[in-house]
Amino acid sequence: MTATPARVTAVDTLDVRFPTSRELDGSDAMNPDPDYSAAYVVLRTDADDGHEGHGFAFTIGRGNEVQVAAIEALRPYLLGRSADALCADPASLARDLVGDSQLRWLGPEKGVMHMAIGAVLNAVWDLAAKRRGLPLWRLLAEAEPEWLVAQVDFRYLSDALTPADALGLLTRGREGAAARAGRLRARGYPAYTTSPGWLGYDDEKLARLARRAVADGFRQIKLKVGADLADDVRRCRVARAAIGPDVRLALDANQRWDVERAVTWVRALAPYEPYWIEEPTSPDDVLGHAAIRRAVAPVRVATGEHVANRVVFKQLLQAGAVDVVQIDAARVGGVNENLAILLLAAKHGVPVCPHAGGVGLCELVQHLSMFDYVALSGTTEDRAIEYVDHLHEHFLAPVVIDRAHYRTPETPGFSAEMRPDSLATYRFPDGKYWAAEREREAAGQGG
Amino acid sequence: MTATPARVTAVDTLDVRFPTSRELDGSDAMNPDPDYSAAYVVLRTDADDGHEGHGFAFTIGRGNEVQVAAIEALRPYLLGRSADALCADPASLARDLVGDSQLRWLGPEKGVMHMAIGAVLNAVWDLAAKRRGLPLWRLLAEAEPEWLVAQVDFRYLSDALTPADALGLLTRGREGAAARAGRLRARGYPAYTTSPGWLGYDDEKLARLARRAVADGFRQIKLKVGADLADDVRRCRVARAAIGPDVRLALDANQRWDVERAVTWVRALAPYEPYWIEEPTSPDDVLGHAAIRRAVAPVRVATGEHVANRVVFKQLLQAGAVDVVQIDAARVGGVNENLAILLLAAKHGVPVCPHAGGVGLCELVQHLSMFDYVALSGTTEDRAIEYVDHLHEHFLAPVVIDRAHYRTPETPGFSAEMRPDSLATYRFPDGKYWAAEREREAAGQGG
Repeated sequence: MTATPARVTAVDTLDVRFPTSRELDGSDAMNPDPDYSAAYVVLRTDADDGHEGHGFAFTIGRGNEVQVAAIEALRPYLLGRSADALCADPASLARDLVGDSQLRWLGPEKGVMHMAIGAVLNAVWDLAAKRRGLPLWRLLAEAEPEWLVAQVDFRYLSDALTPADALGLLTRGREGAAARAGRLRARGYPAYTTSPGWLGYDDEKLARLARRAVADGFRQIKLKVGADLADDVRRCRVARAAIGPDVRLALDANQRWDVERAVTWVRALAPYEPYWIEEPTSPDDVLGHAAIRRAVAPVRVATGEHVANRVVFKQLLQAGAVDVVQIDAARVGGVNENLAILLLAAKHGVPVCPHAGGVGLCELVQHLSMFDYVALSGTTEDRAIEYVDHLHEHFLAPVVIDRAHYRTPETPGFSAEMRPDSLATYRFPDGKYWAAEREREAAGQGG
Repeated sequence: MTATPARVTAVDTLDVRFPTSRELDGSDAMNPDPDYSAAYVVLRTDADDGHEGHGFAFTIGRGNEVQVAAIEALRPYLLGRSADALCADPASLARDLVGDSQLRWLGPEKGVMHMAIGAVLNAVWDLAAKRRGLPLWRLLAEAEPEWLVAQVDFRYLSDALTPADALGLLTRGREGAAARAGRLRARGYPAYTTSPGWLGYDDEKLARLARRAVADGFRQIKLKVGADLADDVRRCRVARAAIGPDVRLALDANQRWDVERAVTWVRALAPYEPYWIEEPTSPDDVLGHAAIRRAVAPVRVATGEHVANRVVFKQLLQAGAVDVVQIDAARVGGVNENLAILLLAAKHGVPVCPHAGGVGLCELVQHLSMFDYVALSGTTEDRAIEYVDHLHEHFLAPVVIDRAHYRTPETPGFSAEMRPDSLATYRFPDGKYWAAEREREAAGQGG
């Protein structure tokens, strides 16, 4: 034990980039060549326990340095701050960061600055869970409803969700929570897989990976669409033939369409019985999603990975624009704002199926869905967490998938911490991988 | 003339900050102490004409360095590019910048990255207008409708505005344009003033400045509200008494309220006959603005200075959520996206009253309103550009206000260029002002 209260003594940032564009893994109609990257932050304290808080914003390559600069702009709010107070009430930091009157101009609550806030808050939650000796999902699921309510910023939400509503939902969620936690530990949380469906894969690879997914126990796969309609018709046929009639086939257009084009395209794919169409248009277009949903039913509409904040999620629910809410662990203002979004979805009775993949997004978001099951929605019906088999080897406590289910993480924290050797290798531009890459390029140009 | 086509040879960036928080100028309920700042960019070419393109993103202090980093991330798209091609078709650059598949993740089309795109595109428009020897409003007002249509990105707009709609509006707008340009030169474009109404001012100063505004010919003033209802009731009474019954009194809440609170608050101020309530709630809350507008009529609802992009403006118009569209010259994707927003407003018959103030926003946005009058909406009825008497002395071609009207700028370009000595003095943190400030602080701490 330290004699004086522990303080945050360092806020280290790293620009970490993985060269995923070499493989066309992750290719879709909007993102042909992503290099999955993390603007990574480590909070250190002078406590004797040695715990650090790790967090990151996920990007897909270029601009990751801008994201790092945004995290660095938040450093003054962290240095010297009491670690006990931070971990006892992450909302106190959330209020300071979201409320900074000058930084707010750069959003407000959207884009680079908001993702930076999310990275820092998630690092605090990682630290808090480590200090408590609990995986984050358990810290949340075992927390008092009143305390969870106090972690939510209700500003701009009160026409759809009040603190009293939230308290009611969370109090109801506590009923039977221990039994659900037991079932979750025994069975895990359902996953669906996007690995077969990247646009860059040929039909043979698509069919092979789709069959394998079903053999592995997945009850839903996802296909990227939106580049070419004739190709999509063929690929949907191939995928449906591979998975049979009973496995769900989700489609993901990655924002490629205007409203009318979305409707036409989805109707053309309807014979293959898609389960949902994801990101049919701009993530900002609440009314557009509502119009598409009315026109393509019974195909469901899903969105959320690029939805900037709780205010837009609120409207998607108010307008009846989505059948499925797709939270992202690293886009909005951290765990605090995702609590708000989970509560909004629960209030409207809409299932949450998180976006994951990239680097580390599966690791993070599993905690939020598991909390949602154990202590909020109380069900996994029509719910599944996206799973993509990329880059998990870089994490100290990677996700474990067992018969198409996420196993409960048991390591204390938010599963956000990358391996030191991975950070050293993929640090941009000076890590071992990138330095060698530059040498290879220089040699190639000289030859 | 150069023998070879001119290319962009340099993209210089500067972090420029003015210490406006010392004076409480610019104080409102959300922004108590802004330091008006610019993430400033200069495009240089190897043409013999010596023309440079100047542009900037406006911020209010902290985080301006993040905004500069975002502009620097765009440099590869500019260096070596043909200056002729850029100026002949700024949309070609807009497509590249907005469409960069990796940078897009950081928005998409919102926040720091989108404001950086706006700064760079505006610099290109400044360069284009200088090379043509025209102030930007004339370049736009004299351009062929087909060319203007080609400058607009219709993605996500087609359910509300098609290229054919736009062409129709612009073709109609050309009728009588020359006569309107003549009237504009003779009379100027109406302004309204926010100078009396900052929250930090006491009642005596408010009344004095309000009376002076009316004496100066202003037909509308604006008051900041939203911090304390009793104060606002008193301040509205003071302001209405000072300006009399016929001058419009606009109110600006700077996003302080949830929906219900906005309605209650505005109704309490209704006896003072406010003309509009500006930014009553989150700029992302289309449905919230619509609900507020229904409840507070006949008080009008205005918003836009923090609206991230054309997709949100589209919905504000589709949902009948606003009576007044407030474009901002430096928030969205430059002139190109503001053309889209002006066209959306014209299609819906909603007047545009730009946000201005800060540093340089008046200089920029006057060009867009003047184009709108001469060659699109064809009217100044119920339209006025915000005017705030701050920091104009730092510009080479500052706005000129004459009897409460903006005079037409006649200097070629977009009026964006700051004086070299101002840039040198207020460059952060190494300019003369800030270096001296640090010395003063060090001396103060030592003494």
